[in-house]
Amino acid sequence: MKIWQKNTGSSKEIEQFTIGKDTEFDILLAPYDVLGSLAHLKMLAKINLISNEELEALSKELKVIYQEIKDGKFQIQEGVEDVHSQIEFLLTERLGEMGKKIHSGRSRNDQVLVDLKLYYRDKIKEIVEASQQLFSLLMQLAEKHKGDLMPGYTHTQLAMPSSFGLWFSSFAESLSEDMDMLYATFQIVNKNPLGSAAGYGSSFPLDRAYTTELLGFEDMHHNVINAQNSRGKTEKTIAFALSGLGGTLNKLAADICLFMNQHFAFISFPDEFTTGSSIMPHKKNPDVFELVRAKSNQLNSVPNTVILNGTNLTTGYHRDLQLLKEAIFPGIQNTLDCLNISYYMLREINVKQNLLEDEKYQHLFSVEEVNRLVKSGISFRDAYKQVGIAIEEGDFKASTHLEHTHEGSLGNLCLDEITAKMEAKLKRFDFSKIESSKEGLLG
Amino acid sequence: MKIWQKNTGSSKEIEQFTIGKDTEFDILLAPYDVLGSLAHLKMLAKINLISNEELEALSKELKVIYQEIKDGKFQIQEGVEDVHSQIEFLLTERLGEMGKKIHSGRSRNDQVLVDLKLYYRDKIKEIVEASQQLFSLLMQLAEKHKGDLMPGYTHTQLAMPSSFGLWFSSFAESLSEDMDMLYATFQIVNKNPLGSAAGYGSSFPLDRAYTTELLGFEDMHHNVINAQNSRGKTEKTIAFALSGLGGTLNKLAADICLFMNQHFAFISFPDEFTTGSSIMPHKKNPDVFELVRAKSNQLNSVPNTVILNGTNLTTGYHRDLQLLKEAIFPGIQNTLDCLNISYYMLREINVKQNLLEDEKYQHLFSVEEVNRLVKSGISFRDAYKQVGIAIEEGDFKASTHLEHTHEGSLGNLCLDEITAKMEAKLKRFDFSKIESSKEGLLG
Amino acid sequence: MKIWQKNTGSSKEIEQFTIGKDTEFDILLAPYDVLGSLAHLKMLAKINLISNEELEALSKELKVIYQEIKDGKFQIQEGVEDVHSQIEFLLTERLGEMGKKIHSGRSRNDQVLVDLKLYYRDKIKEIVEASQQLFSLLMQLAEKHKGDLMPGYTHTQLAMPSSFGLWFSSFAESLSEDMDMLYATFQIVNKNPLGSAAGYGSSFPLDRAYTTELLGFEDMHHNVINAQNSRGKTEKTIAFALSGLGGTLNKLAADICLFMNQHFAFISFPDEFTTGSSIMPHKKNPDVFELVRAKSNQLNSVPNTVILNGTNLTTGYHRDLQLLKEAIFPGIQNTLDCLNISYYMLREINVKQNLLEDEKYQHLFSVEEVNRLVKSGISFRDAYKQVGIAIEEGDFKASTHLEHTHEGSLGNLCLDEITAKMEAKLKRFDFSKIESSKEGLLG
Amino acid sequence: MKIWQKNTGSSKEIEQFTIGKDTEFDILLAPYDVLGSLAHLKMLAKINLISNEELEALSKELKVIYQEIKDGKFQIQEGVEDVHSQIEFLLTERLGEMGKKIHSGRSRNDQVLVDLKLYYRDKIKEIVEASQQLFSLLMQLAEKHKGDLMPGYTHTQLAMPSSFGLWFSSFAESLSEDMDMLYATFQIVNKNPLGSAAGYGSSFPLDRAYTTELLGFEDMHHNVINAQNSRGKTEKTIAFALSGLGGTLNKLAADICLFMNQHFAFISFPDEFTTGSSIMPHKKNPDVFELVRAKSNQLNSVPNTVILNGTNLTTGYHRDLQLLKEAIFPGIQNTLDCLNISYYMLREINVKQNLLEDEKYQHLFSVEEVNRLVKSGISFRDAYKQVGIAIEEGDFKASTHLEHTHEGSLGNLCLDEITAKMEAKLKRFDFSKIESSKEGLLG
Repeated sequence: MKIWQKNTGSSKEIEQFTIGKDTEFDILLAPYDVLGSLAHLKMLAKINLISNEELEALSKELKVIYQEIKDGKFQIQEGVEDVHSQIEFLLTERLGEMGKKIHSGRSRNDQVLVDLKLYYRDKIKEIVEASQQLFSLLMQLAEKHKGDLMPGYTHTQLAMPSSFGLWFSSFAESLSEDMDMLYATFQIVNKNPLGSAAGYGSSFPLDRAYTTELLGFEDMHHNVINAQNSRGKTEKTIAFALSGLGGTLNKLAADICLFMNQHFAFISFPDEFTTGSSIMPHKKNPDVFELVRAKSNQLNSVPNTVILNGTNLTTGYHRDLQLLKEAIFPGIQNTLDCLNISYYMLREINVKQNLLEDEKYQHLFSVEEVNRLVKSGISFRDAYKQVGIAIEEGDFKASTHLEHTHEGSLGNLCLDEITAKMEAKLKRFDFSKIESSKEGLLG
Repeated sequence: MKIWQKNTGSSKEIEQFTIGKDTEFDILLAPYDVLGSLAHLKMLAKINLISNEELEALSKELKVIYQEIKDGKFQIQEGVEDVHSQIEFLLTERLGEMGKKIHSGRSRNDQVLVDLKLYYRDKIKEIVEASQQLFSLLMQLAEKHKGDLMPGYTHTQLAMPSSFGLWFSSFAESLSEDMDMLYATFQIVNKNPLGSAAGYGSSFPLDRAYTTELLGFEDMHHNVINAQNSRGKTEKTIAFALSGLGGTLNKLAADICLFMNQHFAFISFPDEFTTGSSIMPHKKNPDVFELVRAKSNQLNSVPNTVILNGTNLTTGYHRDLQLLKEAIFPGIQNTLDCLNISYYMLREINVKQNLLEDEKYQHLFSVEEVNRLVKSGISFRDAYKQVGIAIEEGDFKASTHLEHTHEGSLGNLCLDEITAKMEAKLKRFDFSKIESSKEGLLG
Repeated sequence: MKIWQKNTGSSKEIEQFTIGKDTEFDILLAPYDVLGSLAHLKMLAKINLISNEELEALSKELKVIYQEIKDGKFQIQEGVEDVHSQIEFLLTERLGEMGKKIHSGRSRNDQVLVDLKLYYRDKIKEIVEASQQLFSLLMQLAEKHKGDLMPGYTHTQLAMPSSFGLWFSSFAESLSEDMDMLYATFQIVNKNPLGSAAGYGSSFPLDRAYTTELLGFEDMHHNVINAQNSRGKTEKTIAFALSGLGGTLNKLAADICLFMNQHFAFISFPDEFTTGSSIMPHKKNPDVFELVRAKSNQLNSVPNTVILNGTNLTTGYHRDLQLLKEAIFPGIQNTLDCLNISYYMLREINVKQNLLEDEKYQHLFSVEEVNRLVKSGISFRDAYKQVGIAIEEGDFKASTHLEHTHEGSLGNLCLDEITAKMEAKLKRFDFSKIESSKEGLLG
Repeated sequence: MKIWQKNTGSSKEIEQFTIGKDTEFDILLAPYDVLGSLAHLKMLAKINLISNEELEALSKELKVIYQEIKDGKFQIQEGVEDVHSQIEFLLTERLGEMGKKIHSGRSRNDQVLVDLKLYYRDKIKEIVEASQQLFSLLMQLAEKHKGDLMPGYTHTQLAMPSSFGLWFSSFAESLSEDMDMLYATFQIVNKNPLGSAAGYGSSFPLDRAYTTELLGFEDMHHNVINAQNSRGKTEKTIAFALSGLGGTLNKLAADICLFMNQHFAFISFPDEFTTGSSIMPHKKNPDVFELVRAKSNQLNSVPNTVILNGTNLTTGYHRDLQLLKEAIFPGIQNTLDCLNISYYMLREINVKQNLLEDEKYQHLFSVEEVNRLVKSGISFRDAYKQVGIAIEEGDFKASTHLEHTHEGSLGNLCLDEITAKMEAKLKRFDFSKIESSKEGLLG
């Protein structure tokens, strides 16, 4: 049941060890394997390696399989090595010898590569959309709370006045910046590897430009060795993008966990969004954001896991690469989960009003006072000294009125500028080809 | 259905996000949760927090549940948060209010901690046994092939004569050294956390020495904060031990993959132990050892994943810790799989005879020749020059007879010494208490 | 001698511990600190916080200091905390009280941030240029050796025919793809943080758009919290780009180390480019590429080192961030060193001619033979079987004539297309503003 | 000037690239190189490879060099490759041809290995001593503050009463547990690699047991391949131990940074032990512990850096290994610095008295109250409900009297037991042989 099998059978122990968790992940690749095969067949017909009749028969059956996959009726049977073998097996079962033709001019290597690229491309689209949704919510919250002051910290020490508007929109701008790395990832993902065969090309006169167009890729990995070596490199790049988003989510979550602590008590969530304790009846634990924090660290660990998989290995396919799925597939899911649950939670966040009126926050205004004195003509050095002495002697009394006017400050959040930047970044992702390519192949 | 639940229900989205993959791993903890509860109850009876009748009734039912677990009849029901809740739920269902008494003087935190410690302890035992099995095989192979010469490389360049006996036993000695880290791990695993409650102890007069004895722990984490903080630290230590073993396995696998390359062709395996290619009919791919290499790198990534989970977090339980299972549990399984499949494969390894008789290996003997000249009275500098010139002029001709006599060299592998060291290291693991403790609690 | 110092002095032990290796790295920031101050002063004059006379006097002196830095006459004096204090100290020494004015409307935090961004920007330019140089050489080598065949490997097993042209240009295309991540990095680096003060902005009416323009930044971090949080995030992004390049270099180096092994002997370097052995007179060790391999792994470790520094930390500056320099600055240098030494070495690489004429490479042509049979009308399945049997029976004899015509294959390397892609990627980096900004500020 | 040099000279670029930062670290190895050579020479005389006169002359000169090193008069001259060449060069300069004899029966590989082992061994001793010093201080602080209550947190939420005594001693017990990993490290460090030559042994009848004894090693790596492969493995093990200690220090530092936040204000340090701000006159920043936190994360990154260096590499020396020094040597220094500065700071820590009398901490006592009710005969379930309702209705009033009696709890810190465990762990490190070996060789 393995397509490389001649006449010796490997033992069950080895089969179990080598297949590992692959079937679990492979099922996700099934629709993309069909799409890749549909494009490959069209190309084979174009270069006359199969007849138009064969193209029609094989394509028709592949579309049936695609529908079975979508309907949840497809599965990898016991003893079948992987999703690619399963689809080939079904084709042969239904069409006889002709089913094997989908393998002409193709190796398992470039077949898997193209499946992965198509899968990743769809997932990047989902991640971009989830990021956009969270971005919009953060911007709405920033607008709503632009007048709600809160303390700003440096060294985890009370430092200067800040606001919830500033705080919410800081994560929004950070998310917009994460789109750059995600776009770099999209570029390597959106390249056609098909035709590279086992990494050294084929003696068939394949038309790679045609499959590139059919599959809606922006470009191809021209060099066939480089196409093969993009396995691992693509995953590393994705891992970087996930870890980039993880960084933004991690800081958001760390802040929320701290701000829900009773000494801060800056924010809260409705009871059904927090958990209690089996032994301490009064607590409201920020479990969701503790888990976002922890999951973002899982994302932060993916780059290293991917790097370790392939470092010091020479050019060409190694079976090691199979295990990349175990790092990247859950990483993608975790990213989506964290973006979505953060959105879900933040819709319900409650912000404490009038926080800074509490006397304990007086000192936050010391720099304001220094600057006010400077603006009134006193030298910075003297103003600094004067305020310092007032504080040391307990005489410090500052106005809580704030006048921050420059770009990105309390009084001028530049939400429009940040939104415009996000939109410009999102526009670079051209997802339209994805759908039109699917329609072209399946329609 | 959550024991901390008062009267508000968290949403399904949150439930799904917070439970995550926990049920998958929790099922493995079930038997240990019963053992921990049995010990805890005995102690509660000893300090009169429950009656002897209650002890008897609860213990009896817990033993029934233990048997159900062993028989594969136990599962975590839909909507039940975790394995601990499930067991408590069953107890209450069967014994009414009395079932809740197992929670007296205990928090979910120390309950989970003790379950994990017991689980890890059993797994370390399995890892030690699998290491021992592989060690023995490597030593047998070393003995068998002590006379079979092979080239030794430095800088991946042909360097000096080596032997398969030397090569096999190098991994055996390395495995024996890995036992030190594993023993350090065993020591932190084999400490009782029970009684630390939520990390700040209990006002009940718990007898922690008694549960330590009942559960067969060597020691306890005395300080209750430290007991709680051992969550994460224990996993980090385990991760180090797994990565240590991973290092030995990685080098073994890397060597095998290279030595199976046709230019080397030093070793081979029966056909059913290798895989072919869908497009290249002549290949024998070392898939199993490529996967051992890759899996050992997964092991190498576990320390970092664990470290990222907890770094910069303050004292006390954080929900983040839950996700450690996703790193450690598969890591343990991977370690066992790699040790076992390596054993399985190496039983069938074929070693090429008389390798060094091929002329291309002449130069390997240059150092031997230099040393021979030195032993005959020529200065090292002159001998070195003389051999160097002979090589440059193509006149070098060396005897392939080798006389290495010192400890650990080709002619004196010191297999007995290495075996003795391994045995001494293994003797430190006192696993006998594990079984006697189980018998004591269940019998 | 510390600008935050009031009247208590910290002990020498603490000073030593907190300053650490900072002075070593800070000296590299000196010219950028002057540039940042020049722009800041111009802006302060524009908003009337300093007079035009003050602007002139301070700028003049700063330009003198800039020249001293360029002439190697600048140093951080014993007891001075950092480069910023040293420059302020010199200004005050030379201009009296007026020297302190450069600190108005600025915090140490945004001052350091802007210095780092300017430094990183220059370094990215150097990395892009070194990549371009190596790319060009690889393309020349590909063109030169497009007809020199070599074996291609999968699973480190002999697989199919490849060529040196294909091999060299695979790294060139890979380098071109690394430019995407580097460009994502350039985008976050090329954003103005000045005006964010300690991360919560300033009550002075700063004109951040003006400093953005003066310093030749493409954009600013609008949100001031986000500007501060970009410390760490910028370094993480740089680390990803370095590790991306490291991946390409690592595979190149791993290949070279293997191909210099005597069993392969595909390539060689002149004697003065390799090293010998103290005890084995015949060896040519690939030390340079072993070190490139190892240094590329140092690059691969930078992302994780950076991530660990900041993960789980809340919003706002933490002193922890200081240590990022110890990871990033050497990482940048290592990247440049590896790119440059690879260029230096590859200029001298010798490639073995007519490799595949050796009989031992016969089997490489099996797939070619299968495809030839298919093209002649036999079904793939039958062709595959027929060749397989011939190989098993020792009867396999194949033509070494190759006809690979598709994009990116042996016979059609698409060097022009790859060059065009590289050029398009390089064009996105607009480095012209860097020089014009320097001239504008210093001229 | 390189001992492997025949008659071609490598270029300056290559020399610079390959030597790298080695001289910076090598100087630290100089005394150990002399010790290793002294032992090696004694052994050579014992097996009659050198005469007793040669032994005497060479040893005498080596002891002179040792003294020069101790007096700071030794340096690696421009153009000399490394410390080993420098010492050999000095010997030859002073004794003529005889100087070269120290290289008989030894390769650069086992020479470096033994130097490193001896260096590491001394450093482990220093780390153990610094750990012990910090442990003792933490225990004193625990004893002093055993009655000073503080809040305990879970999920960063106020949870239950804790005490400074409990908090300080938690780190002490954690340190004691770190000694296990450090001991595992000591075991692999304390093994003699000398005699393994280039990793394949020697045809000279070396007496490795004798050098093992002379150098005060506990054991030898018997297998010579394993001895060579211990390079990298030794460093990995050390990295694990450093990261283990780093974990304890990280949590201590994270706690201190949080507890110095003004909302907590649990602890403080004298002014000269904290830093201020250039723009916020009222702050006391915990810079030292922020840097301990960050440096402990540098320690946490060392394992991964070491793993990446060697993973997937085959048996035998690779030049890559040279770069391990850049990870391990600073890691060792950082560990010592962090242990020592923590000791230095904690001697001055001030703890806030009577913290829990503030009304805001009332709820901490809810579990106490539940337990009190249970001890009075009410079921846990009812007690839990009763307290929960009281809290919800704002009626909760609890006694702050605590009676925790079990092992490791507030009222029973078990300091004696923890001290006893630490002492038992320390006793396993037999450092006495180190000094006696030095005396034996130098005396």
